[in-house]
Amino acid sequence: MSKYDKLVQNAAGRVVPQIINGSDAIAFQGVGKYHPTGRKYAPPIATCADYPADGNKIVAGIKEALVRSGIRDGMAISTHHHFRNGDLVAQQVFDAAAELGIKGLIWVPSASFECHAPLIKYLEDGTIHHIEGSMNGALGKFTSEGKMQGLGVLRSHGGRYQAIQDGDVHIDITVIAAPTADCFGNATGDRGPAACGLLGFALADSQYADRVIVVTDNLVPFPCVPWQIHGNYVDFVVQLDKIGIPEKIVSGTTEITKSPDRLLLAEWTAQFCDEAGIVQDGFSFQAGAGGTALSIGIYFAEMCRQRGIKARFARGGSNKYLVKMLEEGLLDYILDGQTFDLDGVRSMRENSNHLNTSPFTSYNYHGKGNFAQFVDVVILGATEVDVNFNANVVTHSDGYLLHGIGGWMNCLFSKCVILPVPLFRDRMPVIRDKVTTICGPGELIDVIVTERGIAINPLRTDLIEKMKGSSLPIKTIEELKHEAEKICGKPAGPYVTDEPVAVIKWVDGTVIDTVWRVDKR
Amino acid sequence: MSKYDKLVQNAAGRVVPQIINGSDAIAFQGVGKYHPTGRKYAPPIATCADYPADGNKIVAGIKEALVRSGIRDGMAISTHHHFRNGDLVAQQVFDAAAELGIKGLIWVPSASFECHAPLIKYLEDGTIHHIEGSMNGALGKFTSEGKMQGLGVLRSHGGRYQAIQDGDVHIDITVIAAPTADCFGNATGDRGPAACGLLGFALADSQYADRVIVVTDNLVPFPCVPWQIHGNYVDFVVQLDKIGIPEKIVSGTTEITKSPDRLLLAEWTAQFCDEAGIVQDGFSFQAGAGGTALSIGIYFAEMCRQRGIKARFARGGSNKYLVKMLEEGLLDYILDGQTFDLDGVRSMRENSNHLNTSPFTSYNYHGKGNFAQFVDVVILGATEVDVNFNANVVTHSDGYLLHGIGGWMNCLFSKCVILPVPLFRDRMPVIRDKVTTICGPGELIDVIVTERGIAINPLRTDLIEKMKGSSLPIKTIEELKHEAEKICGKPAGPYVTDEPVAVIKWVDGTVIDTVWRVDKR
Repeated sequence: MSKYDKLVQNAAGRVVPQIINGSDAIAFQGVGKYHPTGRKYAPPIATCADYPADGNKIVAGIKEALVRSGIRDGMAISTHHHFRNGDLVAQQVFDAAAELGIKGLIWVPSASFECHAPLIKYLEDGTIHHIEGSMNGALGKFTSEGKMQGLGVLRSHGGRYQAIQDGDVHIDITVIAAPTADCFGNATGDRGPAACGLLGFALADSQYADRVIVVTDNLVPFPCVPWQIHGNYVDFVVQLDKIGIPEKIVSGTTEITKSPDRLLLAEWTAQFCDEAGIVQDGFSFQAGAGGTALSIGIYFAEMCRQRGIKARFARGGSNKYLVKMLEEGLLDYILDGQTFDLDGVRSMRENSNHLNTSPFTSYNYHGKGNFAQFVDVVILGATEVDVNFNANVVTHSDGYLLHGIGGWMNCLFSKCVILPVPLFRDRMPVIRDKVTTICGPGELIDVIVTERGIAINPLRTDLIEKMKGSSLPIKTIEELKHEAEKICGKPAGPYVTDEPVAVIKWVDGTVIDTVWRVDKR
Repeated sequence: MSKYDKLVQNAAGRVVPQIINGSDAIAFQGVGKYHPTGRKYAPPIATCADYPADGNKIVAGIKEALVRSGIRDGMAISTHHHFRNGDLVAQQVFDAAAELGIKGLIWVPSASFECHAPLIKYLEDGTIHHIEGSMNGALGKFTSEGKMQGLGVLRSHGGRYQAIQDGDVHIDITVIAAPTADCFGNATGDRGPAACGLLGFALADSQYADRVIVVTDNLVPFPCVPWQIHGNYVDFVVQLDKIGIPEKIVSGTTEITKSPDRLLLAEWTAQFCDEAGIVQDGFSFQAGAGGTALSIGIYFAEMCRQRGIKARFARGGSNKYLVKMLEEGLLDYILDGQTFDLDGVRSMRENSNHLNTSPFTSYNYHGKGNFAQFVDVVILGATEVDVNFNANVVTHSDGYLLHGIGGWMNCLFSKCVILPVPLFRDRMPVIRDKVTTICGPGELIDVIVTERGIAINPLRTDLIEKMKGSSLPIKTIEELKHEAEKICGKPAGPYVTDEPVAVIKWVDGTVIDTVWRVDKR
């Protein structure tokens, strides 16, 4: 059966595959509509009798660890993006697999970066069959052009936890790169030469993978503290000379924007939050790591400072600006999901109110609630937004898959979701009739802030009411679309075929949209 | 079928039931001999769609929470002993169940105390069918006299985690009493009017129970920090006026012994450790909360101080003596499994090197190793020891079941296990031909220290070698037994029937021994 047989239209009006890489898939049924009936994935019961009596699990290298983990054709192998573009481990894992002659692997990264582009050779030679995780940049281009053997599967950070927890994706072997670890496999990311902060993206893998390998370049005597990863889940520990390139570990986007347009977006967003009554004592916010988002955080900090109020917590993507707020007493807690700069890493080590979270606590939709729903306002980006407030974060308007989802989908369950976006990019309108790929259903997206005006989702009558009489340029989403088209013209494309190359999983594991092979013309 | 049909002799030479409360049981096969082949218990998949969008899970009271949890006849309900003898919650749970007319419940406490004696009325009226957990004091007497409907099941702390993880015991509803919590169910024990330290004994229940109820008398705004219990596992939160009696929460045994005999045991034990080369820079130890054990810790501290060395970690039962070592810099870390006094609670809040552990990290035998195996020396008590170094910790020599196992069994996997015990108690020899109940196989017990001499397990030729020429009175275990019998006479009893009233589960879930109904004469 062809990989794009059996398509169906889902509740978002998108055509999606019913079979993905040979397994049945469930089409998106609407926000909160799908009710799982199964049970969580049940890992095999281990016994201490099978592990070294002295607790020392060190083996000679990645290849030996893979062999002792029973690596074989078709297995799913996972790695994580804690080192971002400085990761030196994922490639070594697949180098070793290729040397062993293993074929048809599924790579399940928590995210991919440019540094992973060399893995394309393993997609080409059949070592890797397909990717379940983000397919950014070169990997995305490769996928978009229909060159990957299997269908790509994109999930949010929370969706990745959900999928592993529920057994939607079963990880045979996970390799967790850890800046510090002990011989038992207790591991942390907040210290060591390759310190990166949290290792939270590996939590699900450590809990549910059949075999867990910890790779470190900083072995310490038991106990490694804090144990972000519990050694009790770990099978093997590998010591390497270097697991990450420190200068590439911290995210590039750690400075506030200097662009006047983006600063305007930031200013208007902050003013909107203020006028809507969101910025008050005890409020909470989450902003990404981009320049605009960082700038909004700075506005919030200034409001707190001037009014003598305090935010209860900020979720992050921690960075020096949030750390400054915390240390200045403008913030009770940072709830850190990923550490974006060295101040964040330092603060995580030093400040007891800088808290480690995980995709389980913050984002897993198949839990009994999660932290995202407590956030008063979240500020996110998007590649496209449509007149129904649906938003896209993975493909560009030309159809190319170039970004992962990250925690974006999961954050949509916050109390107010604001997308500050430029009205157009490279003379392509961002506000459109229909987004190329739906990643977020419009009913969860509340406000679009552009440099030409701000649109409030008609479902949010409360916000519309609050903003009556505001000096901000409140417009309808249609007005914004028309302004964009007036400048750029009606957008054409995307130029895609009817061949699926990847699917987008909603937070509950259902398929919300399909990425189609681009039609190179 | 009678509850004591189908008995079999196990690898420890003990006769044990093959069917326990209607389910098949596996007889003890020897240390490290039983290999589980199954999978962990798989809880049903939850979805945020079924939980309040604002994250607020508060319901009016315990009874409402039980009803909304679907309580019905025959369910297993668990509670925990974090408040020790000051617990006010377990009784309210079963009061509510009795008011609802529920029958045949299984109570799965992590331990029981004298304050739980009033629950006997619910064992008598059929509200509770039997207990899986410790049956101490009055509950033990009740059980020993054959009055409990079902067979009691005793497990170690680690065994309790193992049993819940593996699905040997399935918890339908757990009620977690929490000194501080938020409306989402995040909960901690290290602060609040009923602060008790850790909530680690509730970890397994939170992860695997179908329904999780958090009960608190100190509700704080989200997020409750630290979240020792993750709200993501919690269904309902109940606010009460008072959940524990603070003055009874801390253990009674927090002072060093003043008894000359016990001080001698402590001194000899410490000297033994020193001469055996255990007390050296970077060593680790665990001692219980009894007066003798506390005194040994003080000897260790003094050795560190005098020699300018440092222990890597102490596992505890934390108490003011360990905290003093930590704060004086004689100890890198306290690995806390249970907090025994208010200094321990304070230190847990304040010291980042006072670490929270759990039965999962420290004791679970069905994991990929656990922390207990890293401890250089552990000092434990026993009610009886036999000439094969088997030890008993649950029954007295008259056959009465009066104590729980706690972490005792789990600690036997440490590198050196020392039992300082008096040669006799109330003119009953402690060293005997055969223990009334085997809780620890002799091959795991290394040294018996009594006031008349010290016996080293012949298996530990290394220790015997090291102690050659020692000034300590090294004797054989038979010599100790003879000395005891010379003073007390050959012990008679226990006077028990052939009717099982409870079983002792080994760390791997197999049945190591049976407690028999006492023959009251």
